[in-house]
Amino acid sequence: MNRADCVARDEADPLRVHRAAFALPDGVIYLDGNSLGALPRATGARVREVVEREWGEGLIRSWNDARWIDLPRRVGAKIARLIGARSDEVTCADSTSLNLFKVLAAALRLQSARASQAGGERRVILSERGNFPTDLYVAQGLADLLGAGHVLKLVGFDEVAAAIDDRTAVVMLTHVNFRDGAMHDLPAITRRAHDAGALVVWDLAHSVGAVPVALAAAHADFAVGCGYKYLNGGPGAPAFVYAAERHLAALQDDPFAQPLAGWLGHRAPFAFDPGYAPAASIDRFTVGTPSILALAALDVGVDTVLAAGVDALRAKSIALTTLFIEQVEQQCAAFGVELVSPRDPARRGSQACFRHPHAFPVMQALIARGVIGDFRAPDILRFGFAPLYVRHADAWDAAAALADVLAREDWKRPAFRSQGAVT
Amino acid sequence: MNRADCVARDEADPLRVHRAAFALPDGVIYLDGNSLGALPRATGARVREVVEREWGEGLIRSWNDARWIDLPRRVGAKIARLIGARSDEVTCADSTSLNLFKVLAAALRLQSARASQAGGERRVILSERGNFPTDLYVAQGLADLLGAGHVLKLVGFDEVAAAIDDRTAVVMLTHVNFRDGAMHDLPAITRRAHDAGALVVWDLAHSVGAVPVALAAAHADFAVGCGYKYLNGGPGAPAFVYAAERHLAALQDDPFAQPLAGWLGHRAPFAFDPGYAPAASIDRFTVGTPSILALAALDVGVDTVLAAGVDALRAKSIALTTLFIEQVEQQCAAFGVELVSPRDPARRGSQACFRHPHAFPVMQALIARGVIGDFRAPDILRFGFAPLYVRHADAWDAAAALADVLAREDWKRPAFRSQGAVT
Repeated sequence: MNRADCVARDEADPLRVHRAAFALPDGVIYLDGNSLGALPRATGARVREVVEREWGEGLIRSWNDARWIDLPRRVGAKIARLIGARSDEVTCADSTSLNLFKVLAAALRLQSARASQAGGERRVILSERGNFPTDLYVAQGLADLLGAGHVLKLVGFDEVAAAIDDRTAVVMLTHVNFRDGAMHDLPAITRRAHDAGALVVWDLAHSVGAVPVALAAAHADFAVGCGYKYLNGGPGAPAFVYAAERHLAALQDDPFAQPLAGWLGHRAPFAFDPGYAPAASIDRFTVGTPSILALAALDVGVDTVLAAGVDALRAKSIALTTLFIEQVEQQCAAFGVELVSPRDPARRGSQACFRHPHAFPVMQALIARGVIGDFRAPDILRFGFAPLYVRHADAWDAAAALADVLAREDWKRPAFRSQGAVT
Repeated sequence: MNRADCVARDEADPLRVHRAAFALPDGVIYLDGNSLGALPRATGARVREVVEREWGEGLIRSWNDARWIDLPRRVGAKIARLIGARSDEVTCADSTSLNLFKVLAAALRLQSARASQAGGERRVILSERGNFPTDLYVAQGLADLLGAGHVLKLVGFDEVAAAIDDRTAVVMLTHVNFRDGAMHDLPAITRRAHDAGALVVWDLAHSVGAVPVALAAAHADFAVGCGYKYLNGGPGAPAFVYAAERHLAALQDDPFAQPLAGWLGHRAPFAFDPGYAPAASIDRFTVGTPSILALAALDVGVDTVLAAGVDALRAKSIALTTLFIEQVEQQCAAFGVELVSPRDPARRGSQACFRHPHAFPVMQALIARGVIGDFRAPDILRFGFAPLYVRHADAWDAAAALADVLAREDWKRPAFRSQGAVT
């Protein structure tokens, strides 16, 4: 394998045409699409249309005429195709953190209702220590609010299945870990939880758009996910939320099962009824008025993923991460770089991460050369491979650049040592 | 007073130049800026810059380089000037509904902490029956979640002050009513509540940008408000949240006093600490990652208001609503149109509302003539006067158009009777 082989693979790549749909800056190899996806070329025109024609000329009338009112559901229905859900089980709203709060509260309500029939109150939210912090914070905040013995219990990545017991109300996991890309077995953990009487909330932030997810097939309960990573929805794009139809039905008579009750989650928002009565549909997970500019950009981003197809993206993602891991290990082993992502591609998302004692300045030095990856505290070099626009040659060149930064010790320069940068 | 007088007033209007900053469609008199503000001409270019340069070229680096990370606080500091708050007491986040949930929960925590010292638990949230429904829903959802006797008590608009007693934990009011524009005496109710040991949460959705608000002078506790009405931030623009510095300090050791704990509310988000420790500042009212496109548009909208100044806007707003009320009463009294907004401008926000038994089709017929107001169930014709871009001649013409619709009975046409339209 050499660079020419990579170029040949890129020329034969069936996804090649999709890279042209993105406005990528010259001189940059972008390996941070799992933090902020790249800009689709079509986004600018769509946002301009929303601003100038729909808002500027249509004004308030566009809630109907431009169908703003059901844009969250229309984009949600597209995302449903990426996660194996029914089109009416997904909507877009708020942030991943807030959606997590909603579904976690709803799952605990379901458990509470079951307990009042069958006895045996369950009050443990089970998660993993290395989960993305916002997920843990949301659970801590909700447990504090509910009191009455609700707790968040944390175990190691591989200890989750064994830790599910008859006190577990909800298992809350991120499918693909943000720090090292390790992927949980979503169907197996869901099955194990159900067998033990627990429910599962999946955070698909680092999965959707890069890894196939089949929620219906797994009989999944609840899920949330992020719009600005592999979905290319733009900085701070709206998140999405999934609730299985059977749970929506079961919660129908419990108005505050989703406790963030807002007017757009009401069954008749424009009746202006002083009492809350939730929509019977996934709409009850909507709270206030969503940003239409942000949703329109997300809509374009989701289309880029749908156009390529998740299976083709997954195949290329595995090829890219495998190639990058091989090359980094060949070229950088002498410099104390150690793989932290799973070696087995079946257990890995679309990223390849390495530990290095000076990971922060090493990444800064690499970014200065135009290879944009990410640092994750305390010592992780994180490289995300968005298969829609990253090429085999990019993976090759990035590994070579990393080897060169380490060999020349670029990273020792004072300019690269400041921790002032926040991302 | 005749139409020529109105035109003369517009020519002499010191705010005249500000109308030119908006892209208003031809042939439309827009009296719904209190539902969705008009498009500032500068917004398109600013959003294009964010999309194409900051996102497209800067990619993830723009969180630092384009200062995305502190955009919520920068816009918040501008809004602080419009509501008489300190620049570090306001930030932009999420929706009005969600911000209401946060501040209501925080206010109840403060009361609970006081009670544990002084005794006398207060668990009543007091509001008015005619408050905007989402405010009531949010309080209902929070009371349900907290249980333990927390209740929402509703009284009439004029009964609030007298209903505050030693069981009242929080008074939650919208400063200017969405349906009829009636305005509460913010300083007086705040003082009355404080005297009785209660706290106050103000929803400024229909005030900010049209009515002067002086939160610090009133010793206000908490407030929220909307970005897409008089602030011209675009459809579903982010909302804002205010917490008095003294309360931020008092809540510092209570990590979940604001229970929607997310990573951007953490004191060190990029340390990725598994335990939540809130920022000491107003940042703790941030949850997940905000939409940068939406915030950039809001920033431009807020600038349009700052450029004009709230006092000048208020003076013109009073002139416009007074003129419109006079003309409608003169021309339409015979057709069963009845003023529901307060006649005293000191008790009225920037809207003029009338009751009519066929308000829905009347408004549809008026919109068909290019006079865009709003219908509010069950029988309200609502006309908002955004003084940045509405002219005296518009108020005159709108009253004449309403009189003509009523005289000719346009509204009886079947096309105007459908209630399918949602806004």
